[in-house]
Amino acid sequence: MRIHIQNPPDDPHFEITEAQWRAALSRSPGLPEMDVSFARDDAGFAAAIGEAEVLLTWTRQLRARFPKGALPGIAPRLRVIATTSAGLDPAAPFDWLPDSIALLNNRGTHADKAGEFGIMALLMLHTHMPAFADQQRRGEWTPHFASTIEGRRVVIVGVGSLGGGIARRARQFGMHVIGVRHGRDPHPDCDETHPNEALDQILPGAEFLVLTCPLTERTRNLLSRERIARLPPGARLVNMARGPVWDQEAVLDALESGHLGGAVTDVTVPEPPPAEHRIWHTPGMVVTPHVSSDDRARYNDRTLDILMENLRALRDNRPLPNRVDPAKGY
Amino acid sequence: MRIHIQNPPDDPHFEITEAQWRAALSRSPGLPEMDVSFARDDAGFAAAIGEAEVLLTWTRQLRARFPKGALPGIAPRLRVIATTSAGLDPAAPFDWLPDSIALLNNRGTHADKAGEFGIMALLMLHTHMPAFADQQRRGEWTPHFASTIEGRRVVIVGVGSLGGGIARRARQFGMHVIGVRHGRDPHPDCDETHPNEALDQILPGAEFLVLTCPLTERTRNLLSRERIARLPPGARLVNMARGPVWDQEAVLDALESGHLGGAVTDVTVPEPPPAEHRIWHTPGMVVTPHVSSDDRARYNDRTLDILMENLRALRDNRPLPNRVDPAKGY
Repeated sequence: MRIHIQNPPDDPHFEITEAQWRAALSRSPGLPEMDVSFARDDAGFAAAIGEAEVLLTWTRQLRARFPKGALPGIAPRLRVIATTSAGLDPAAPFDWLPDSIALLNNRGTHADKAGEFGIMALLMLHTHMPAFADQQRRGEWTPHFASTIEGRRVVIVGVGSLGGGIARRARQFGMHVIGVRHGRDPHPDCDETHPNEALDQILPGAEFLVLTCPLTERTRNLLSRERIARLPPGARLVNMARGPVWDQEAVLDALESGHLGGAVTDVTVPEPPPAEHRIWHTPGMVVTPHVSSDDRARYNDRTLDILMENLRALRDNRPLPNRVDPAKGY
Repeated sequence: MRIHIQNPPDDPHFEITEAQWRAALSRSPGLPEMDVSFARDDAGFAAAIGEAEVLLTWTRQLRARFPKGALPGIAPRLRVIATTSAGLDPAAPFDWLPDSIALLNNRGTHADKAGEFGIMALLMLHTHMPAFADQQRRGEWTPHFASTIEGRRVVIVGVGSLGGGIARRARQFGMHVIGVRHGRDPHPDCDETHPNEALDQILPGAEFLVLTCPLTERTRNLLSRERIARLPPGARLVNMARGPVWDQEAVLDALESGHLGGAVTDVTVPEPPPAEHRIWHTPGMVVTPHVSSDDRARYNDRTLDILMENLRALRDNRPLPNRVDPAKGY
């Protein structure tokens, strides 16, 4: 089997190396013989793609590499496209993708790191850290006390890999965890699991709300201005999904009015925001630069382990565990 | 038995009420009959102290209430002084305290809350949150990635109630926890426990250092400029003890030089610091206003439960579990 790994052109942190590939192979014995090629530039891509059966690539390169209708000519032997992102919204719409090719996301790389970031953000919001940061800027010492977070209600919208990692940590701290997801399957780390359609009924009880759903046409503006108004006064938000999943201007307005008690966001619109954007200095808002779920030290190893797991399924004619449904977008 | 509860004069948040007293009694059946009085002013204190056998009071009132040599005249029947603080440094030196009177601290009220604050601070430091706060002030989006905190080494100086609570949480996140304490008793939530004398040898391996020891003459300036220099480059600090336990100016210098990778402090010198103090704007420093260990919602209940536990020991002629050794100061 011929595999081509197309690395990012300008981000050596995430460049998958031949040593990492060999290490991953040694963790997954029994796979068929594989020829692997690596490239980070256009010439390397062009040289390898004609023979490749499996492509591992950065998500945001996909639409530019494969204009609509062009893929069968460019990559006639391709069967699997594996990506290094959990969220495939940069590759949507999927009009460039023939039905015969399996598109894989990288779900599973992020759970532990996202769980740590998520519980940190929840504890920061509960402990009034955004207010203390505002006070620190002014040289002001005004205590605001907080109890332990035990018993507080957190609603997690999207309990896949990211949200599930957060649910697990939140339970360790005794929070009451309410998962919201597509469908009705209960999640083992949630005290309650509800379908997306129940969101409007759940919002008034959400002391904490975490967004960890994929960005699709169904989740764009999911946390709209109207839904923000349904949250209880003082509610606190964490966005680890994508900027367009909430109405960012409405969030900033609600922080300024005092309706919301604080927010931590790892994603913005636009991303990055210009230096003069109001998001930087809205009281109660903590901005981090899209770092919540990437465990750099372990990222490539986990990415390759997930690829190997899918290649094993391919060998055995089982459904590929990371295959994305282009109609749903995840 | 006559108990007097002297509440703070000006802090209704921490005023112990008769309802809280009755609730605590109902949680501790079998104690002897008790007469209880409450006051928050000098007149109430003067009216009750002559008959009181047990006094529950705020620590910082003690030296003013009982000038050296005056206690036997003011409170001839007093046997126990219970305080609402874990750290009794505001009452030191203890030259005003007759040997016959048991002085109790409030050790045990703070463990859960301190554990939450401590792990939040460690995760913030690990995730580069102090740098992101500096960047946010400038409107700057520069990602710095962090792996999970698993396997990182944290040294906790003082594994009593506060430090023990942090050790327990740090272990849940897979950190390697090194406790430093008076004596050689191993701590159940530490991977290693070392006596204070070993500190100089331990510092070069401390990726994270947490101060949770009492302030005594032995711990004043414990983290001196010389010891800060022994820490590895990029080490990160958390101070939940007292400001004078570290050399604050040396910490700020080491943040500015880049030797330290960040710090979260809940205590300062002086406390509070004036608005123009450099601590507010030193890069990498996060200041919180002495809120790390006080769980306001549960504080009074836990304080009374600890008092009841000690009164039960008094009734049974057992050693009082919260009795302080004035020679050691804790």
